[in-house]
Amino acid sequence: MKKVGIIMGSDSDLPVLEKAIAVLQSFGGPHEVHVYSAHRTAEEARSFARGAASAGFGVLIAAAGMAAHLAGALAANTVLPVIGIPCSSAAFNGMDALLSTVMMPSGIPVATVAVDGGVNAALLSVQILALSEPELTKKLTEKREQDAKKVLEKDKAIFEKYNH
Amino acid sequence: MKKVGIIMGSDSDLPVLEKAIAVLQSFGGPHEVHVYSAHRTAEEARSFARGAASAGFGVLIAAAGMAAHLAGALAANTVLPVIGIPCSSAAFNGMDALLSTVMMPSGIPVATVAVDGGVNAALLSVQILALSEPELTKKLTEKREQDAKKVLEKDKAIFEKYNH
Amino acid sequence: MKKVGIIMGSDSDLPVLEKAIAVLQSFGGPHEVHVYSAHRTAEEARSFARGAASAGFGVLIAAAGMAAHLAGALAANTVLPVIGIPCSSAAFNGMDALLSTVMMPSGIPVATVAVDGGVNAALLSVQILALSEPELTKKLTEKREQDAKKVLEKDKAIFEKYNH
Amino acid sequence: MKKVGIIMGSDSDLPVLEKAIAVLQSFGGPHEVHVYSAHRTAEEARSFARGAASAGFGVLIAAAGMAAHLAGALAANTVLPVIGIPCSSAAFNGMDALLSTVMMPSGIPVATVAVDGGVNAALLSVQILALSEPELTKKLTEKREQDAKKVLEKDKAIFEKYNH
Amino acid sequence: MKKVGIIMGSDSDLPVLEKAIAVLQSFGGPHEVHVYSAHRTAEEARSFARGAASAGFGVLIAAAGMAAHLAGALAANTVLPVIGIPCSSAAFNGMDALLSTVMMPSGIPVATVAVDGGVNAALLSVQILALSEPELTKKLTEKREQDAKKVLEKDKAIFEKYNH
Amino acid sequence: MKKVGIIMGSDSDLPVLEKAIAVLQSFGGPHEVHVYSAHRTAEEARSFARGAASAGFGVLIAAAGMAAHLAGALAANTVLPVIGIPCSSAAFNGMDALLSTVMMPSGIPVATVAVDGGVNAALLSVQILALSEPELTKKLTEKREQDAKKVLEKDKAIFEKYNH
Amino acid sequence: MKKVGIIMGSDSDLPVLEKAIAVLQSFGGPHEVHVYSAHRTAEEARSFARGAASAGFGVLIAAAGMAAHLAGALAANTVLPVIGIPCSSAAFNGMDALLSTVMMPSGIPVATVAVDGGVNAALLSVQILALSEPELTKKLTEKREQDAKKVLEKDKAIFEKYNH
Amino acid sequence: MKKVGIIMGSDSDLPVLEKAIAVLQSFGGPHEVHVYSAHRTAEEARSFARGAASAGFGVLIAAAGMAAHLAGALAANTVLPVIGIPCSSAAFNGMDALLSTVMMPSGIPVATVAVDGGVNAALLSVQILALSEPELTKKLTEKREQDAKKVLEKDKAIFEKYNH
Repeated sequence: MKKVGIIMGSDSDLPVLEKAIAVLQSFGGPHEVHVYSAHRTAEEARSFARGAASAGFGVLIAAAGMAAHLAGALAANTVLPVIGIPCSSAAFNGMDALLSTVMMPSGIPVATVAVDGGVNAALLSVQILALSEPELTKKLTEKREQDAKKVLEKDKAIFEKYNH
Repeated sequence: MKKVGIIMGSDSDLPVLEKAIAVLQSFGGPHEVHVYSAHRTAEEARSFARGAASAGFGVLIAAAGMAAHLAGALAANTVLPVIGIPCSSAAFNGMDALLSTVMMPSGIPVATVAVDGGVNAALLSVQILALSEPELTKKLTEKREQDAKKVLEKDKAIFEKYNH
Repeated sequence: MKKVGIIMGSDSDLPVLEKAIAVLQSFGGPHEVHVYSAHRTAEEARSFARGAASAGFGVLIAAAGMAAHLAGALAANTVLPVIGIPCSSAAFNGMDALLSTVMMPSGIPVATVAVDGGVNAALLSVQILALSEPELTKKLTEKREQDAKKVLEKDKAIFEKYNH
Repeated sequence: MKKVGIIMGSDSDLPVLEKAIAVLQSFGGPHEVHVYSAHRTAEEARSFARGAASAGFGVLIAAAGMAAHLAGALAANTVLPVIGIPCSSAAFNGMDALLSTVMMPSGIPVATVAVDGGVNAALLSVQILALSEPELTKKLTEKREQDAKKVLEKDKAIFEKYNH
Repeated sequence: MKKVGIIMGSDSDLPVLEKAIAVLQSFGGPHEVHVYSAHRTAEEARSFARGAASAGFGVLIAAAGMAAHLAGALAANTVLPVIGIPCSSAAFNGMDALLSTVMMPSGIPVATVAVDGGVNAALLSVQILALSEPELTKKLTEKREQDAKKVLEKDKAIFEKYNH
Repeated sequence: MKKVGIIMGSDSDLPVLEKAIAVLQSFGGPHEVHVYSAHRTAEEARSFARGAASAGFGVLIAAAGMAAHLAGALAANTVLPVIGIPCSSAAFNGMDALLSTVMMPSGIPVATVAVDGGVNAALLSVQILALSEPELTKKLTEKREQDAKKVLEKDKAIFEKYNH
Repeated sequence: MKKVGIIMGSDSDLPVLEKAIAVLQSFGGPHEVHVYSAHRTAEEARSFARGAASAGFGVLIAAAGMAAHLAGALAANTVLPVIGIPCSSAAFNGMDALLSTVMMPSGIPVATVAVDGGVNAALLSVQILALSEPELTKKLTEKREQDAKKVLEKDKAIFEKYNH
Repeated sequence: MKKVGIIMGSDSDLPVLEKAIAVLQSFGGPHEVHVYSAHRTAEEARSFARGAASAGFGVLIAAAGMAAHLAGALAANTVLPVIGIPCSSAAFNGMDALLSTVMMPSGIPVATVAVDGGVNAALLSVQILALSEPELTKKLTEKREQDAKKVLEKDKAIFEKYNH
């Protein structure tokens, strides 16, 4: 199975990515976690992205805040799908990171998820890998059913509490 | 090869998706174009998403404006990757569509691209399918090289015009 | 008297809706509280909305945060009036939820109230039901008078404190 | 059948309300159109709202731009449901009108629809009146079916044009 | 000397106005403090504004949050200058109140100051009254000099601390 | 009668101020129009503000766009009331000018009106001068009556056109 | 004299940079114009920035729109001062480009000017080079005087037109 | 070596500037710290800027919040490069200060860095001075290398923690 590369622009983004890591672990998806700054270690970020496909990666997840260039910088150096997580680490609650991540120019797409959306970034990576891993599709469907079940249980509890 | 489903919430979003269609045609990627409204034909949208995997689709692209629920509504009914294009059809230049598309709750990701980003949505779908289609990877790499070449030619022309 | 359906997209929205429930209780308006996610239990949300009119509901109130599709998803499946409460649960203080709720396309309106506006959503539902329940109109008028009286008392207290 | 009062803050908002009038005409809903400014003819706006219930109105629709106080000013003087349409007439594309209309304080709700949402305001008023007019419910359901049919026809046309 | 009327839409805005009251007290400017809601006690707000000039007021200050209509509602009922203070009491940190206060339509101006700008509202009212009260002009000039002196003292302290 | 000083930061703001000039002419209020840039002719702006009171001015109106410092720069050099008009001349439709004008720090208020609000700036200046010119109060009241009359005439016309 | 490097991310940004080029020509400042995309020709952009100091450049100016990474990407590869111009080429009128350019993380500054601020970017580069080129300081001071003179002439013309 | 002038509009901005001071100390760059308000001590700000070049300054750094005019006011009075730091001290998290600082009109540039970006403002000032101080260039390059090293160490630690 192809690996998911999980890259953060700064270790202050780790809490967001720990959620992504937990999701990937629950799916048994192989992954590798790195800290590469689009600006402070631009060279390492570039090398990693350039070699990612041959190193066995299938998808990259990049989390960064403020003028969040990391996802775009990786995407410019690979044709693997790159998922961007805008982090809310700065004055503008992540609006700066969202626009810096999602408004990519034609030619270099970044698959952007919600601000601080570590869980969804990981799920999206699994959904992409699942296209050639039927086992993952099965697990994704099961997770959806479990998520739905939890909502239904909450519905039951709240219905009973407030309606009598 | 798996198909790309291209769905628009309203035919007023067609100009954005025509760019996506053109990209898919240039890659020889099989695709199917539909108009399904998340609200006016919610049932058809749901059925399409539910049956998409078995109908041979590998990725769905959804374009919608204003309170853009279409991508999320499709994503809720399939574990295929869903790419969302926020359209700038309303008063807020697409900010409403962007937030409605990208800020999905945990569990149901939408891979969001730039406002009106038809080209990048198509490229992202090709990058996803390319994980199991080496031929597409080759074509993507060639397109990157051609894009780069065009920029270099423009650089040359502008350099010559302004520096002498 | 017709019932008010109070639906939250996640039990994290309960504090906002508890204010709505309290208002409805004070008016003696029958109501039913549910947790239905537009994405995680889309089917249940749809079924509930489709059957709401025949189950004796007159108005639905839907509260959700982030890319808040719940009110719209319910509205797409009933011609009962649907009141949307955008919740401030995400990075953007409810701006994402507000735009996702209020900017509905032509054909499927959602009656949107203020961010976290549980009280007003409930009052609006009572105002709607009051059109065929003169007793409710009387109670609404009394509440307005009581609200006004409270402001006048505060005016008196503050006038006395600061003017002498 | 109760009447719908359609109020604009300025005759520059007429184009938005003409769409509302057309919808009400198609439903055969009795209505009355007025220009009352929350600021320039505050007295007339107040008198109208105060007398609206006894004059046979069931719902009021108010359209205004910029610091749009009209819907709130009417709502403060009646317990009839008041629907607010924020108009995009000013520098901020309707964001000022949206926030001025939707962010009402507890006690005085305004049922806000999309910026320039004349059609949906009228539909919402019909949905409210339909609670005690089964004939309107039938017509609303038919309109939904016709709207869906139009989308399906567009789907067919676009599917045929782009897939072959 | 003419009085300054200080009106708050809700007693939750009192902390902002206490700063205004303190400024007026330091200038010896006669003032009167009230709680009038543009929506809950619209009648009292209107009466107060209508009678303000004959009751000896020269300027009105109005503080309100969210869909802040109070300043505009007062301004619609008097030709006295009305100063509006947008309060940051809601989800949008005062942006809603700012736009609701400042974006008044032609004919009814509101002199808007900064979000939560109690001090400046009071100073502005004094500057207006000072046009016919030379003593106030003198005091305003002295306050400016004292403010400047404080900044210069801070400059000296910080210069000494950081430059040696 | 005291004069109104009308200052623009650039002659591109003239169309906004021509509306202000027309209003002042209709009230017979003496006024003087200048172009002073807060940055390009900072010295002249400062001198003008410093000498404004002794030169017979009672109120200053300042219009500027983008990082609109003009009103604040004048206000820092006089204790006359300064009215700021944010102009929509730049990329952000006047939001930059609005925030640069209204968010003044404690000590130096600017009475801010709506974006491009030339008419209201002039009316506010007349309302301020009217405190010591009863004749202006009379004219302001008459204008209010005329404005109301115009709205009532439009109401009549639209009522007749749409209700029959 | 050191050269100014003028880089655009796309030739669609040329109109903004032509203003910068004209300013540099008027100052006689040597400059070189290039098209380097942070994403499509990332390698060339990097090489250029890395070699800029030894190639005789003293300042770099970078103009880009949308998720504008160009200025940051250059700044990451040189310790020369990099001036960023956010371009208004996308849906959000340059707000996306502004935030992507100015909100750089600690360590890699970008000197950001106004949206589409080609003239000021060039002037800033001249101001920087002038620190070691007294002749440029002289020219800058003369330009300031000429700019002021133009404003004063406009002041005179407008004063004469409107005051008589 | 030329000095860096570090100016704050209010001593509440000191925490942001202490970071700048620390950076300058680490580079051994001579600097001088002042509190000058663009509005409260406009005269001192102006005098400082006018005399800055002859007093041996090479760059000015100005930090201010809200309607942040300080950087622009200094820039209007010197042709030295002026770096502006928008501070997040007000309701809008620094968006007001950012727009007030960066959106300068043609002729008077301000080199704007991120909200609260004290470190980058100082680094930018060093980068500017380094053009004529090769020693500083060397130190800047070393700092870049150290910053990169820190990121690489974090990468190693996180890689080891999460990949095994």
